[in-house]
Amino acid sequence: MKKLLPRYSDKEMAIIWSEEGKYGRWNKIEVAVLRARIPIEGLNLSVPRNLEKKIRVVPAEVDKIEKDITKHDVIAYLMCVSPQLPEELRPHYHRELTSMVPCDTALFMQLRDSTELLITRVKDLMHAIRTRAFEYKYTAMIGRSHGVHAEPLTFGVELANYYDELNRQLDRLRKIKKSISVGKMSNAVGMFDFDPEIEENACKRLGLKPIIASQIISRDLIAEYMVLLAIIGGSVAKIGIKIRLSQQTEIREIQEFFDKNQRGSSAMPHKRNPIGSENITGMARVLRGYALTGMENQDTWHERDIANSGPERIIIPDASILLSYMLKRMTSIVSKMLVYPKRMQKNLQLTKGLIFSQSVQSLLAEKSDLPREDAYGIIKDIAQRCWDTGRDFKKVLLKNKLVRKYLSEEDILSRFNLENKLESVDYIFEKVFRKR
Amino acid sequence: MKKLLPRYSDKEMAIIWSEEGKYGRWNKIEVAVLRARIPIEGLNLSVPRNLEKKIRVVPAEVDKIEKDITKHDVIAYLMCVSPQLPEELRPHYHRELTSMVPCDTALFMQLRDSTELLITRVKDLMHAIRTRAFEYKYTAMIGRSHGVHAEPLTFGVELANYYDELNRQLDRLRKIKKSISVGKMSNAVGMFDFDPEIEENACKRLGLKPIIASQIISRDLIAEYMVLLAIIGGSVAKIGIKIRLSQQTEIREIQEFFDKNQRGSSAMPHKRNPIGSENITGMARVLRGYALTGMENQDTWHERDIANSGPERIIIPDASILLSYMLKRMTSIVSKMLVYPKRMQKNLQLTKGLIFSQSVQSLLAEKSDLPREDAYGIIKDIAQRCWDTGRDFKKVLLKNKLVRKYLSEEDILSRFNLENKLESVDYIFEKVFRKR
Amino acid sequence: MKKLLPRYSDKEMAIIWSEEGKYGRWNKIEVAVLRARIPIEGLNLSVPRNLEKKIRVVPAEVDKIEKDITKHDVIAYLMCVSPQLPEELRPHYHRELTSMVPCDTALFMQLRDSTELLITRVKDLMHAIRTRAFEYKYTAMIGRSHGVHAEPLTFGVELANYYDELNRQLDRLRKIKKSISVGKMSNAVGMFDFDPEIEENACKRLGLKPIIASQIISRDLIAEYMVLLAIIGGSVAKIGIKIRLSQQTEIREIQEFFDKNQRGSSAMPHKRNPIGSENITGMARVLRGYALTGMENQDTWHERDIANSGPERIIIPDASILLSYMLKRMTSIVSKMLVYPKRMQKNLQLTKGLIFSQSVQSLLAEKSDLPREDAYGIIKDIAQRCWDTGRDFKKVLLKNKLVRKYLSEEDILSRFNLENKLESVDYIFEKVFRKR
Amino acid sequence: MKKLLPRYSDKEMAIIWSEEGKYGRWNKIEVAVLRARIPIEGLNLSVPRNLEKKIRVVPAEVDKIEKDITKHDVIAYLMCVSPQLPEELRPHYHRELTSMVPCDTALFMQLRDSTELLITRVKDLMHAIRTRAFEYKYTAMIGRSHGVHAEPLTFGVELANYYDELNRQLDRLRKIKKSISVGKMSNAVGMFDFDPEIEENACKRLGLKPIIASQIISRDLIAEYMVLLAIIGGSVAKIGIKIRLSQQTEIREIQEFFDKNQRGSSAMPHKRNPIGSENITGMARVLRGYALTGMENQDTWHERDIANSGPERIIIPDASILLSYMLKRMTSIVSKMLVYPKRMQKNLQLTKGLIFSQSVQSLLAEKSDLPREDAYGIIKDIAQRCWDTGRDFKKVLLKNKLVRKYLSEEDILSRFNLENKLESVDYIFEKVFRKR
Repeated sequence: MKKLLPRYSDKEMAIIWSEEGKYGRWNKIEVAVLRARIPIEGLNLSVPRNLEKKIRVVPAEVDKIEKDITKHDVIAYLMCVSPQLPEELRPHYHRELTSMVPCDTALFMQLRDSTELLITRVKDLMHAIRTRAFEYKYTAMIGRSHGVHAEPLTFGVELANYYDELNRQLDRLRKIKKSISVGKMSNAVGMFDFDPEIEENACKRLGLKPIIASQIISRDLIAEYMVLLAIIGGSVAKIGIKIRLSQQTEIREIQEFFDKNQRGSSAMPHKRNPIGSENITGMARVLRGYALTGMENQDTWHERDIANSGPERIIIPDASILLSYMLKRMTSIVSKMLVYPKRMQKNLQLTKGLIFSQSVQSLLAEKSDLPREDAYGIIKDIAQRCWDTGRDFKKVLLKNKLVRKYLSEEDILSRFNLENKLESVDYIFEKVFRKR
Repeated sequence: MKKLLPRYSDKEMAIIWSEEGKYGRWNKIEVAVLRARIPIEGLNLSVPRNLEKKIRVVPAEVDKIEKDITKHDVIAYLMCVSPQLPEELRPHYHRELTSMVPCDTALFMQLRDSTELLITRVKDLMHAIRTRAFEYKYTAMIGRSHGVHAEPLTFGVELANYYDELNRQLDRLRKIKKSISVGKMSNAVGMFDFDPEIEENACKRLGLKPIIASQIISRDLIAEYMVLLAIIGGSVAKIGIKIRLSQQTEIREIQEFFDKNQRGSSAMPHKRNPIGSENITGMARVLRGYALTGMENQDTWHERDIANSGPERIIIPDASILLSYMLKRMTSIVSKMLVYPKRMQKNLQLTKGLIFSQSVQSLLAEKSDLPREDAYGIIKDIAQRCWDTGRDFKKVLLKNKLVRKYLSEEDILSRFNLENKLESVDYIFEKVFRKR
Repeated sequence: MKKLLPRYSDKEMAIIWSEEGKYGRWNKIEVAVLRARIPIEGLNLSVPRNLEKKIRVVPAEVDKIEKDITKHDVIAYLMCVSPQLPEELRPHYHRELTSMVPCDTALFMQLRDSTELLITRVKDLMHAIRTRAFEYKYTAMIGRSHGVHAEPLTFGVELANYYDELNRQLDRLRKIKKSISVGKMSNAVGMFDFDPEIEENACKRLGLKPIIASQIISRDLIAEYMVLLAIIGGSVAKIGIKIRLSQQTEIREIQEFFDKNQRGSSAMPHKRNPIGSENITGMARVLRGYALTGMENQDTWHERDIANSGPERIIIPDASILLSYMLKRMTSIVSKMLVYPKRMQKNLQLTKGLIFSQSVQSLLAEKSDLPREDAYGIIKDIAQRCWDTGRDFKKVLLKNKLVRKYLSEEDILSRFNLENKLESVDYIFEKVFRKR
Repeated sequence: MKKLLPRYSDKEMAIIWSEEGKYGRWNKIEVAVLRARIPIEGLNLSVPRNLEKKIRVVPAEVDKIEKDITKHDVIAYLMCVSPQLPEELRPHYHRELTSMVPCDTALFMQLRDSTELLITRVKDLMHAIRTRAFEYKYTAMIGRSHGVHAEPLTFGVELANYYDELNRQLDRLRKIKKSISVGKMSNAVGMFDFDPEIEENACKRLGLKPIIASQIISRDLIAEYMVLLAIIGGSVAKIGIKIRLSQQTEIREIQEFFDKNQRGSSAMPHKRNPIGSENITGMARVLRGYALTGMENQDTWHERDIANSGPERIIIPDASILLSYMLKRMTSIVSKMLVYPKRMQKNLQLTKGLIFSQSVQSLLAEKSDLPREDAYGIIKDIAQRCWDTGRDFKKVLLKNKLVRKYLSEEDILSRFNLENKLESVDYIFEKVFRKR
């Protein structure tokens, strides 16, 4: 298959999607069918142990035969393999099979193995997040909605949220791994042309379940795989956006690790930029593009057409390798990111107490006879004036006659309490991390 | 929320996504939280039975209050509800909750109920397909790959394939229904501000599971929902494409039911077109567009931003209603479509035996000492000449000296056997329909 | 056609895409063909002045006839119109025309008029930007790349950039308006069935150019329209993202206007959020989804299929109305946004001079014999230490022996010059605004 | 940059997007800036003739320096180039420029050159279509809407339609080539840091127009390029779909050229499939995915972020190469496709005259006093009965008493006239091909 840009590659994943990876699976499939046939068809043959591993297929040789002679890849493959087989097996290897038997089954084996590797990659990222989450479990920071200060939480809680989301992605990968572990040996138009038990038996040998199919396995399964990759990419990108936002010069709560010899800019020596997170944000867009193509590929005429084939050669390996790369890179970013709790502390105080406005307003509503609406209005007026003038919210409240009609000094002071706001941290961590 | 074009709507689904549907769920959520609080916070209050159902919310009234007074929908809603409550409950209804508690939880309840309805719609379509599948279980027709005649199968087998694919969609809907049945009462930035047990208790009352969240529930879940709808749409469209292809004038194996008074064309009186299937093909494209937006919405700043909100008001109801409409329409199309077995029979004979070329070639390879390649070449030459000249393949084979060197008349005749090709029908039906 | 969610609508645009808008254009087209025929076919008929405006078509009546009698919209329309015509014209109105003559031609007239309105909307936004640009022409602020402070520019220059980009969008709209102003009267499969001169004449009367077509006008034109809307949406969203970033609590250089009675949050009285800009960011995602569907609709079988039709009823009006709404809303946001030059000034100083690191480094490279690389390395080390410690860059430089070996105090001081950095403002304004 | 799968590549286009192609353009840009500076800044330097062509940059060497030393590609490039320069030029080459000066300007030069090549490819395809169009100018065939026989046209007219559509694509390419021929030397945040005249002068030397920009040129231009490629892909795919439909066994009006040694299927020797057209249909889906990513890349933070960069390294070269490949392949398919006029003739007669139903109905409406509706109803009943029974439409009409009340034998016979239907062929050819 194809090589994604080396700079965005992941070796282990690239191996799964390599030509060698493909032919190795073809060997396995052809030999599995052969082994299945012997008892079922009562053939008097013996298949050497590990035959599938002993067959050597050099992609360049297959290519050459395809180009020079057969113009057909499966037949070229067979011409490479045949001389390596015990003579008695030659007429039976691939006998009466259509190309799609090795091709489509191998593709789904690759999808399964790719999913397996992505599971590992997601777990690694989750592990990195978990470690940092416990490190900053109680590190207070301001929560932001719309980019504007809302109420406090802890950085650990934010990370726990990402962990929980990735945990859902892990579940999705596990589910799809199961549904995608299928093989298809039912030949030209899905009518078998031999005892269907051979399919069942051969699939079992390969760790697959047989699937009812036309000439090809229906592409709803591949569409599902492609969009899942895009959705996982979206989750990873969300973490990247968080880091980008947090590394802004005015916020500076988090910084991507920056190597001593690294340069942020060829022109501006002072620059250190969150380029890893930016890259990942962008790559999620590429995955969405591939997902779209994957969905369009569901469109199939009758028992098959080949319009899906070319696109799949591009999008499936590229998306798999790209997501694997993104997950690895984000794991490294999270593990090494610099976190600045002091800055978080400082930012918490930036609005001089306004982030407790809701607490004050609740108490006012409770202690006064005022309708909730009016209590809200009073606090809103004060709070927004403080925002504009930069005055200290607590001090202004203490001096405000209307407020003081209902709230004592003690009342007011009690509401500016960071600890209270963070009381549920243990509960959240218990919920999120207990699971595994 | 919004109304999709009436002509593409589905009433039951539209009700779920109506304003009334939304406010009804808000009532349920607010009352559930209230009930949860009483024992946990030790309040001395009693909530009337079925309170949630007794509260009447008229969308137009809420809208008016929002426009004229509050500029905020949740507060406008509360102003409608409050006077209807027993006096002692008024200060406690929605106390200390953020808007997202009813808003996001209700959205996920709608998603759950929408999924439930889609499950019914998919089942109805499956049922229609199953009925027609058994009707045409043994009805032979030509299988086509690339639009070109390949080998025979039965129309029942084709339908069984669609059934099996929809069965996978059903599984996906069931899985997502489970993961999407979540509620969130953890307030402004997910830190609760009250005993988290209240969330657990209230969610239980609503048939939901609590979910760790920031201000909003993470949008990976909605992205997953949106792409699933698009992928289901892709499966339905595939059936539509099959019908469109089969209704072509030259093929005419299937025809969409055409009402007596219906007109195919304002100009051409002879026309009957597969417009239902064409419409469904197109609508799948719309669903893919919505899915894309759903995926982009995963991008969230910190604890939330509101960029996802406007798009969701459009895409979620529209996609849900549209898919529901597509499923219903396809159910009707499949139930009523006219199938022409005689035409299928005629088309089977169109290539005058060429569809058995593989069978002949296999036997030639087996009986001769020729390498598979050479046997293939001999038959290919004959077959393609027959294709071009329109001559009868069997007759030509019988007269061909090279072929006859290896194959007897009996051999050749034995390969033109439709029955053999259809031997696995029972096995396929058993596999596909046994499940349920 | 359809109504988008009222909250995201634009009345003027909605009128173009209303049912009334459609039937009004049908009248014009049918009458234009009639007028064209008289001289060309030598008919002895006279068409009353302004006939097209006198015909009244009530959509609900057409719908009723379609539902109860004809099941065909064009014929239902004709039944409404016919009794209103002078008797001699009745047999000639729509004579020998296929439905696509009024339908497709009217659609392209709507597209043209929609484009015309979008041109106005873009111009309005440009005008708003231009006004603010001149207001802040020399207002210095920090330029940011990767969210990190880079070098200074002025807010006026930023706005000039947006203006220039919208100017390109304007050009695109003008070009597409020209290519989309086409009409098609060539009947069932594009073979006319009458003198093609009638098409030319009728199109001229409608301000359209005839286009060679099959049963329908090729959908490449609609795809082009749909993606252009999405790309314009992308430009508008970019301004929204700028505002969102600038309204972050830590940055606070810009703030969306916030109405006195508006509420930022039902819970947190202190909140003022950039919800307009967020909404627009999100809506650009919806436009991209529609664009995708528009591109998929290019796929047409032979002379036409109807798969594009249903999607077009949804995506074309919705996208047009949505973009028009976005443009209007952004015009209002830009016109009313609060800009804080003092805060910009303050943020400029946040890194204590580091934003001049490039200037210093250039001079060092020039004055020393050091290779550029080494000069860069020296300044980078100093700059990044300052970044981490918060020390004043200028002071540190003045004390640094290595630097002072090559640079005098005067040299160093000369590089911390904001004015120098802003020297090209006039040139940029000249280039951007001179054009119009 | 990257290599697309070799099997879907186009050498000439790949060269434009190669690493060598990139560095060659960097040379040109750097030297152009240098030359521009000399008179404007009054430097006493001389630049050797063709210096830009004499500088040798070996990508692998740059890579090595980047990896081992600089971690920055532009600086690595400069280290390769510097020793090759006359000593006096070394301090001035790239002096005070940011990386984006060569990087972004070179990217837009590549885009321009890529567009230029695509123009050639589109022209080649148009030329092939034109040739075949004149070959089959008067070759009658049935026009089809919804896949169902409609009315006759000629194959030449169909091809003329494709030609006309590609002509629009050509216009779009020419327009975009103009808008994309831009260069940007305005440095870090678009404020120049030197005399803007240098940019004007250097751009002129490169055949570019200067563009107002931030750190990067705004990505609306690249989005426009990416979607244009997708829309062109859609037009090419539409031709592919036509061929696929026409090669269906039951239709067989067109066949992709099939090489003697080619194999349609490893299993079925009789198969010849339209795999080129299928491949192109699929690849258009990939282009739509890339286009989507291109549109998402418009989203930029402040003066720039780098999220667009990684995706662009993938999607721009891949899409350019892929479309170029598609155009070349379709040119070959169109040039070599086998067309079967006899089969077209046979298919025209398949419905035994029903394709003239509109003509008969028009005459009936004209000659009788019957309302159009009733005339339509009479012919519709007859036509659809003929459709179902396979009877000859003309014969049935001649025997139908109701019809014969109004129409003479001569009347009826006159309507079954293929020639009449094709009268506008010359007009259409004149309109389409006269242009060039």
